[in-house]
Amino acid sequence: MRGRIAGIDRAGIGSVVNIGRRGLQRGMIAIHPLTGMGEIRPGDDLSTLIGDALDGLEQGAPQPGDVLVVTQKIVSKAEGRFVDLSTVTPGAEAQRLAGITLKDARLVELVLAEADTVVRAVPNVLITRHRLGHVMANSGIDRSNLGPGMGEHALLLPVDPDASAERLRAALVARFGASPAIVISDSFGRPWRYGVVGVAIGAAGLPSLVDRRGELDRDGRRLEVTQIALADMIATAAALATGEGAEGVPAALLRGLPMVDHPAAPVSALVRPLNEDLFQ
Amino acid sequence: MRGRIAGIDRAGIGSVVNIGRRGLQRGMIAIHPLTGMGEIRPGDDLSTLIGDALDGLEQGAPQPGDVLVVTQKIVSKAEGRFVDLSTVTPGAEAQRLAGITLKDARLVELVLAEADTVVRAVPNVLITRHRLGHVMANSGIDRSNLGPGMGEHALLLPVDPDASAERLRAALVARFGASPAIVISDSFGRPWRYGVVGVAIGAAGLPSLVDRRGELDRDGRRLEVTQIALADMIATAAALATGEGAEGVPAALLRGLPMVDHPAAPVSALVRPLNEDLFQ
Repeated sequence: MRGRIAGIDRAGIGSVVNIGRRGLQRGMIAIHPLTGMGEIRPGDDLSTLIGDALDGLEQGAPQPGDVLVVTQKIVSKAEGRFVDLSTVTPGAEAQRLAGITLKDARLVELVLAEADTVVRAVPNVLITRHRLGHVMANSGIDRSNLGPGMGEHALLLPVDPDASAERLRAALVARFGASPAIVISDSFGRPWRYGVVGVAIGAAGLPSLVDRRGELDRDGRRLEVTQIALADMIATAAALATGEGAEGVPAALLRGLPMVDHPAAPVSALVRPLNEDLFQ
Repeated sequence: MRGRIAGIDRAGIGSVVNIGRRGLQRGMIAIHPLTGMGEIRPGDDLSTLIGDALDGLEQGAPQPGDVLVVTQKIVSKAEGRFVDLSTVTPGAEAQRLAGITLKDARLVELVLAEADTVVRAVPNVLITRHRLGHVMANSGIDRSNLGPGMGEHALLLPVDPDASAERLRAALVARFGASPAIVISDSFGRPWRYGVVGVAIGAAGLPSLVDRRGELDRDGRRLEVTQIALADMIATAAALATGEGAEGVPAALLRGLPMVDHPAAPVSALVRPLNEDLFQ
């Protein structure tokens, strides 16, 4: 961990480094909810809305090491990834899986169109490997909080979330002269544990995966944990503020994070190929 | 999300609610590293060391909704969960798996003693289902950062981490009259993604799993995501500050979290029984 955290005072962090309005206590990590963007619609310029929200946030001026986490839902909405279910005609496989999973066959058709493989289909559960490599429920397709009048629509993941993050970052650089790193977040279930946690599906300007292979522990012993899923951890931390999107908090600014100065890598670096699945 | 976050100002969170030394901006979540506890040894009273560290932290006085995340390593150390590998005689199964995984057969013997089942054994990888239900590498047994002279030792998980969390909480109540909720954190790999993230292995005083089944989204539609692994999310957020333990940050205090006022549930509530594994 060669980032900011490496420099913290081991004898305690009580001292205040900076008392100013943007003050950050030594070693502290801050998660600031970003609100006031209103309902996002297809074609909205997300970078303008987010830039305005950052302007309205006391801590919003970009500082080195900042990370902006944006929920998948508003990225997908701005990119117009809505599908009107009444336009979808389910094929035979979608109808078969809809019978097993008790889901709307038109939705299942979309799930299959977005997936490379079906991992699991049982009543109320349809887990796929998304074309981006993520193993997730319903290929990440969403029907909650789509906005007024969108009840018969579904919302797909962005076409290329790493590219979406990079575009947002470039637009914020153009506006502010600098940009926080960007993470696009979603929430996934896990095989052996109840409940969802935040995950990253796109990132720009930070190391999604931090490789510490070869580093030594405090006793000079080789570290056993060698790779850290930093983008997923940041997405999870931000999800404590953004929740499940029902609360009108579609983004968060994180400050004081460690390791973000390691070489940047997109979220695609986090995807383990199926043939390397270590758990089966 | 009926906790604090529900009350945030949707038009922006720029205003400072409390300018005092313990001020927290509206909707902000803060993660404060807790340091200065020194090397923890078997028999150390963790509640005293943590209480002293909280006293040294400007924000340390317990406030309602605070959560203290303590890394598994110092809990295990204080509980004396060291095993001297020179005292371990590997059985036939441990020797067989050591041959496959290229690991120390004595360590494998300990891994098996802590496990219900072996999930995966290939070169350099041994994944088990721990007796506590967690699916994890090496039954959570640790050989990094054990302290000077402990190179031939291994460190097991606490016997009952939910109970460890509850004891720590009771001791902090006795000292301060109130205690933050407690999460004991570890880091796990994931089947389909590279890199580890933080997870909770013990908790007291907060809802490890938040059940939102039956709640509606902003458009009156039933929420698709219904259970939130809050303790895991909090453990992950804290792990951004505590890292992999190599930096001398064995704990963190989190303030401003949502949902912690839901009914408390231990981490055992997060463990999905093997026969409910949805991903296979």
